[in-house]
Amino acid sequence: MNRLIVFMTDFGLDDGAISSMEGVSYCVSKELNVRHLTHNIPPYNIFDASYRLYQAIGYWPEETTFVCVVDPGVGSERKSIVALTSSNQYIVTPDNGTLTHIDKYIGIAEVREISEKTNRLKDSELSYTFHGRDVYAYTGARLASDTITFEEVGPLYDKDKLVMMNLFGCKKIENGVMGLVDILDVRFGSLWTSIPYKDFKECGFEIGDDILVEIFHNDKKVYSNRINYGKSFADVGIMEPLIYMNSTYDMAVALNQGSFSQAYNIGTGRDWKITMTKK
Amino acid sequence: MNRLIVFMTDFGLDDGAISSMEGVSYCVSKELNVRHLTHNIPPYNIFDASYRLYQAIGYWPEETTFVCVVDPGVGSERKSIVALTSSNQYIVTPDNGTLTHIDKYIGIAEVREISEKTNRLKDSELSYTFHGRDVYAYTGARLASDTITFEEVGPLYDKDKLVMMNLFGCKKIENGVMGLVDILDVRFGSLWTSIPYKDFKECGFEIGDDILVEIFHNDKKVYSNRINYGKSFADVGIMEPLIYMNSTYDMAVALNQGSFSQAYNIGTGRDWKITMTKK
Amino acid sequence: MNRLIVFMTDFGLDDGAISSMEGVSYCVSKELNVRHLTHNIPPYNIFDASYRLYQAIGYWPEETTFVCVVDPGVGSERKSIVALTSSNQYIVTPDNGTLTHIDKYIGIAEVREISEKTNRLKDSELSYTFHGRDVYAYTGARLASDTITFEEVGPLYDKDKLVMMNLFGCKKIENGVMGLVDILDVRFGSLWTSIPYKDFKECGFEIGDDILVEIFHNDKKVYSNRINYGKSFADVGIMEPLIYMNSTYDMAVALNQGSFSQAYNIGTGRDWKITMTKK
Repeated sequence: MNRLIVFMTDFGLDDGAISSMEGVSYCVSKELNVRHLTHNIPPYNIFDASYRLYQAIGYWPEETTFVCVVDPGVGSERKSIVALTSSNQYIVTPDNGTLTHIDKYIGIAEVREISEKTNRLKDSELSYTFHGRDVYAYTGARLASDTITFEEVGPLYDKDKLVMMNLFGCKKIENGVMGLVDILDVRFGSLWTSIPYKDFKECGFEIGDDILVEIFHNDKKVYSNRINYGKSFADVGIMEPLIYMNSTYDMAVALNQGSFSQAYNIGTGRDWKITMTKK
Repeated sequence: MNRLIVFMTDFGLDDGAISSMEGVSYCVSKELNVRHLTHNIPPYNIFDASYRLYQAIGYWPEETTFVCVVDPGVGSERKSIVALTSSNQYIVTPDNGTLTHIDKYIGIAEVREISEKTNRLKDSELSYTFHGRDVYAYTGARLASDTITFEEVGPLYDKDKLVMMNLFGCKKIENGVMGLVDILDVRFGSLWTSIPYKDFKECGFEIGDDILVEIFHNDKKVYSNRINYGKSFADVGIMEPLIYMNSTYDMAVALNQGSFSQAYNIGTGRDWKITMTKK
Repeated sequence: MNRLIVFMTDFGLDDGAISSMEGVSYCVSKELNVRHLTHNIPPYNIFDASYRLYQAIGYWPEETTFVCVVDPGVGSERKSIVALTSSNQYIVTPDNGTLTHIDKYIGIAEVREISEKTNRLKDSELSYTFHGRDVYAYTGARLASDTITFEEVGPLYDKDKLVMMNLFGCKKIENGVMGLVDILDVRFGSLWTSIPYKDFKECGFEIGDDILVEIFHNDKKVYSNRINYGKSFADVGIMEPLIYMNSTYDMAVALNQGSFSQAYNIGTGRDWKITMTKK
């Protein structure tokens, strides 16, 4: 293992929770390098957790260990697992859908269920609500530091039983494509859609085209306008809209130096469909 | 020392302050591993600082150095100290109450006053408002890197003179217990009380019991309801309330996947009492 | 190089962007120590980026590499450069004004333009909107880890062509000084002005003086009051105003344990002038 361990949670950074997880890790081994993907996943939002993990993981070295805890089911019968990806990275997580994007776009090679008998912080048996610290950080740190092998995590876990969300993806429609507004580029308010560049490109769209963008909330049209398809924000004037390929190689919609999401009250998720078509 | 140095402040992460403290530390020694507990302690809130430090410190290795700066009295006669805890960890801090929970629940073995003549960043004598950088980070880094010994911090400081807050703790009342709403699990809006699991348990409460929870703001009752005592959130339905033992082994009240604090407008501190009783 | 690489952006910490930049760096070399100045620069605000970089850089060791990406012009003809400062530190950034404070107060020794042919993340050629990851983090990591030399960044770049903002600085006026409200001590709402301590001092002001402070928004007076000049916050009562020298050795105005900015609705930038005069 490469000693890199990366945490992602919905715990925020306002209290001592993340620091407790770090401390547990450094108690396991001071040779670890603890990093943070983000701790601002919206509370309980497993879709966003799955997406953000996928957004970042491809840029990390092989043998990096990720500890991903968005865990509304803590204390229920949901299983605690470690997945080995096809890209030779490890993900320590509750089995609740967090691996959906990884499974679809990267692949999962093998999964093991965490045996809490051996892989639980000493004297934490009474603690039922902070598995992020007591089980996941602890197990991740032991794995990342070669204190245990992947096999010592616990027994093999049937990949086909993994909990997965149903991704909408992208559909070809007349003269164009339809997808969802999956998530925001939070800081800038741009809409990141589920339409891959490849599918968009196959419709014949070219840089410079004006493309009809329509957005639907629960099938009610809430936005309709022609938007220029550019390489980057600088291709349009300030506060002008733009279609572009984002950094995950999917299609996105922005307002240059403004917030498209705020300007037009656009949200994300299964209720928000978007189409891009030639007129 | 183990080279781990952990910062906690109320400075936030929006400007260059924390980075200046890191830079000072790495100028002292590039072998340090600078970590962050949280920098979002509410401004000037020494109670929260004391609580968050206590919440995390137990999970860190021996010989870790903590630099804790919530310092409304910067520039006053308040003293700058380093405390050695009974758990063999060091805390660099103004003597203003930040050590209250540590003193009560862990213990303080020895305290030294920082001699600013030797333990102050070179050429910072004119700077009166950023001791976090000029004195605390600098001294913490020198201690954590073995540049100075604990003795070289400065003269012994009388433990009995340490500034301490008065903690309310927990009182047995008829059929139950009374405490304060000490603090929030900020991200999720759960109420963390000053009632230890042990005292709660001694009242005879069992998992599955419906317990009468009453909350008082300045002695005016603002909430009264029977709440189920569960092991974890998954024991109740979504948006249902729950009493549980939190990760510091105190009693807490939550709304599963909601915010109890927001839903019922509950605050924290000495004005907010809470009782848990059998009917 | 010293293996320290420090990131500053306006990307926030809510998604996977910063983690992608970290991952790219660790793929270049696991020996790096990636640190974060702040990622909460207000979106597109190059002045604040320039100021925050200057606020922190002086406290970091020589040979530290800074990667500073506030880049509203991503995808335009703006150049990507690496500057070597007179203090022997490196800054990887778009040439858009981010180096203004460094140039004025520290000095720039040499600049090179990044050759994207060699200094671009492999297979990222299609990505036009995240140079922070594909060009800046990648190049910074290669430089900080001695994978490339400064010369291998690319050809020399004419220092005199660097994009610079026009800083207002400080003007002597009758009985005092005039400057701008440059920026806030965000967390505490104090006003940090462009009036250096040295110029203020030359007016003959002494600790304890009551000084007439007037603030103008677009030349309309919005605040006028006599404020005590103290060493530190503790010199005045709680919620009383105070003039003091801040941690960058400029003059500042605060409300002790309150927010001056919020209390009096004071903003920052070229539209906000402030004078300090003897009556």
